[in-house]
Amino acid sequence: MILQDIQKIRAEAPLIHNITNYVVMNVTANALLAIGASPVMAHAPEEVEEMVSIAKALVINLGTLSMAWINSMIKAGHMANHGGIPIILDPVGSGATRFRTETAQLLLHNTPPAVIRGNASEIRSLVLAEHSTKGVDSVHTPEETIEAAQFLSGNFRCVVSVSGATDIIVEGGSLIRVLNGHPIMPRVTGMGCIASALTGAFAAVNKSYFHAAANAMALVGIAGEIAAERCSGPGSFQTSFLDALYNLQESDIEKRLKMVVE
Amino acid sequence: MILQDIQKIRAEAPLIHNITNYVVMNVTANALLAIGASPVMAHAPEEVEEMVSIAKALVINLGTLSMAWINSMIKAGHMANHGGIPIILDPVGSGATRFRTETAQLLLHNTPPAVIRGNASEIRSLVLAEHSTKGVDSVHTPEETIEAAQFLSGNFRCVVSVSGATDIIVEGGSLIRVLNGHPIMPRVTGMGCIASALTGAFAAVNKSYFHAAANAMALVGIAGEIAAERCSGPGSFQTSFLDALYNLQESDIEKRLKMVVE
Amino acid sequence: MILQDIQKIRAEAPLIHNITNYVVMNVTANALLAIGASPVMAHAPEEVEEMVSIAKALVINLGTLSMAWINSMIKAGHMANHGGIPIILDPVGSGATRFRTETAQLLLHNTPPAVIRGNASEIRSLVLAEHSTKGVDSVHTPEETIEAAQFLSGNFRCVVSVSGATDIIVEGGSLIRVLNGHPIMPRVTGMGCIASALTGAFAAVNKSYFHAAANAMALVGIAGEIAAERCSGPGSFQTSFLDALYNLQESDIEKRLKMVVE
Repeated sequence: MILQDIQKIRAEAPLIHNITNYVVMNVTANALLAIGASPVMAHAPEEVEEMVSIAKALVINLGTLSMAWINSMIKAGHMANHGGIPIILDPVGSGATRFRTETAQLLLHNTPPAVIRGNASEIRSLVLAEHSTKGVDSVHTPEETIEAAQFLSGNFRCVVSVSGATDIIVEGGSLIRVLNGHPIMPRVTGMGCIASALTGAFAAVNKSYFHAAANAMALVGIAGEIAAERCSGPGSFQTSFLDALYNLQESDIEKRLKMVVE
Repeated sequence: MILQDIQKIRAEAPLIHNITNYVVMNVTANALLAIGASPVMAHAPEEVEEMVSIAKALVINLGTLSMAWINSMIKAGHMANHGGIPIILDPVGSGATRFRTETAQLLLHNTPPAVIRGNASEIRSLVLAEHSTKGVDSVHTPEETIEAAQFLSGNFRCVVSVSGATDIIVEGGSLIRVLNGHPIMPRVTGMGCIASALTGAFAAVNKSYFHAAANAMALVGIAGEIAAERCSGPGSFQTSFLDALYNLQESDIEKRLKMVVE
Repeated sequence: MILQDIQKIRAEAPLIHNITNYVVMNVTANALLAIGASPVMAHAPEEVEEMVSIAKALVINLGTLSMAWINSMIKAGHMANHGGIPIILDPVGSGATRFRTETAQLLLHNTPPAVIRGNASEIRSLVLAEHSTKGVDSVHTPEETIEAAQFLSGNFRCVVSVSGATDIIVEGGSLIRVLNGHPIMPRVTGMGCIASALTGAFAAVNKSYFHAAANAMALVGIAGEIAAERCSGPGSFQTSFLDALYNLQESDIEKRLKMVVE
């Protein structure tokens, strides 16, 4: 089923509108191009509504956030919601500063996403924010992460996709675990942001956002494994990762996929 | 003649002032450095006039456009026009949103460029905008592209350089076709933006902006061919492309150049 | 002693808060990750104080400067000064425009850095600015650079670290020269900005900012030498450089380090 999604992406080249952070714009665009999607980066309030209306998914990423961009995120988000275009929200840094946490909440409540995609800290910070609890917790057991994801999924009626050594994808009571990936991946900037952008590409061709989110995490994990075997460090990893996304074969997926549906 | 231009760039290291998009800033700077030019990225209204006045070319690129930057583009453009410094205008996304199209028009009319450099859609959108016609056309025959380029060249008395499987460079009734390049190039972000920046470097050392534009497209195409032969996908292509720009020899040009002057 | 610092960085993964330019954000984040530090890029006035308060160093870089960011630099700088968090100031482009020079001065006077890290032109422009002298000088002998660094170090009671064929690190009357590096390094964008960011990582674990600054320059030079031996040009250099930072061994340092303490 991953393969079907990838074939659709390659055939249809869906336009993915990204409002994302400065650090990862280049690698995000390249990752989307490598799997066959068409990336566009646009953030001006004068054009985001027009841009998102011709896109198949909207990816909103809170890294390097600023006030001026929040306005554009909301404008683009409203138009996406109105047009039935799935929003992927990556709450980068939620929990690290109030500004990020509150912006994530603002977007969750005003421009409901199809998928929330973050790491365990970010996902838990959103739960704490809804509970009006102060402070940042430091211990995350996998069970706590699943609970947090389920709470958010129920509360906002969306898919929640949590990256980690094991990725957790939740929709209501349903759960998928993806065990693909490699320990070098957190040593390269933007792997999470790429996962969010690719989730957008999969959501553009697969109306089950739950499976789209899981397939995106599996693809990132598998390409990461292939790249890790070929690289000599995080610099060559980044290069090999894009090559692996571009060259991915059915046999790679068959051989490597570790997805557990519960 | 390409070689003479490259030797001049390597010898003089002309300062190229770029007001360009976030996605490609890094690769653009690296491509300019690789051929021997000196890139500077600066967009603050407080400094663009001073910066452009010490530069040999100004490259204005409309990707990731915002209102605040348009002001700086106009300020820098006026100073460049005043000082006889060639402007290369890359109307990224013109035709996709009104904001991009209208900004491209604003700059065309207020800060006349030496070279307009875009893809066929962007070039045709500028013609449609001048004709006050609504809607975006989808079919572009090479002949229509040449007609559009000739219209713009006549209207704005500038060179028009259109990238594609065959690059089209037009000045008035003169036409050059460049057949170099490789199909993987559109799968890597920023190749068009790099072509625009390198056009700036060539225009800094060759007062015939028509030949400067054609030479830049040929260089990008030739380096792209060399990189495509050495890479395993779009990630390693990007790396090999910069290496190829840096290492380019006379023999590479002699062996590969496919330029037709009409 | 470099090795001890690197081991500490790898063990403690200090959070380094960067307010830096668009061109180098990705490579800076990747370089910090490669040596084991935790990078964060944040510039919004709403969050910089909160972010810097959980960081171990603040790196302020004036490339792609704009008015809106200066406000954030000052806010973050005040908080860093207040909390005893070392500031690394990289006055990119100081001397090229008044806006850059005056902003560098503003920050020097209002948010005193632990280390000023720039190239010889930038360092000398700051001395000229303090002397209220007009004009930019063009000849820099090594002795003039040392004098300029000593003047700034005495005036602002900080370390001054100047990159070049030989790096010069000064604190009051003390001087370290680092002779590591490779001529290809200035042909890759962001090597100076990476040096500044890594200086932040070393300052986060070594309370002697003088030695932290020298160790950072030596690490960049050694990794640059290793990368230069393995690369085919500036594209593959960038990839190999990150790999070299990640894989650096004690034996590399023992074999290559060329540091002269005077």
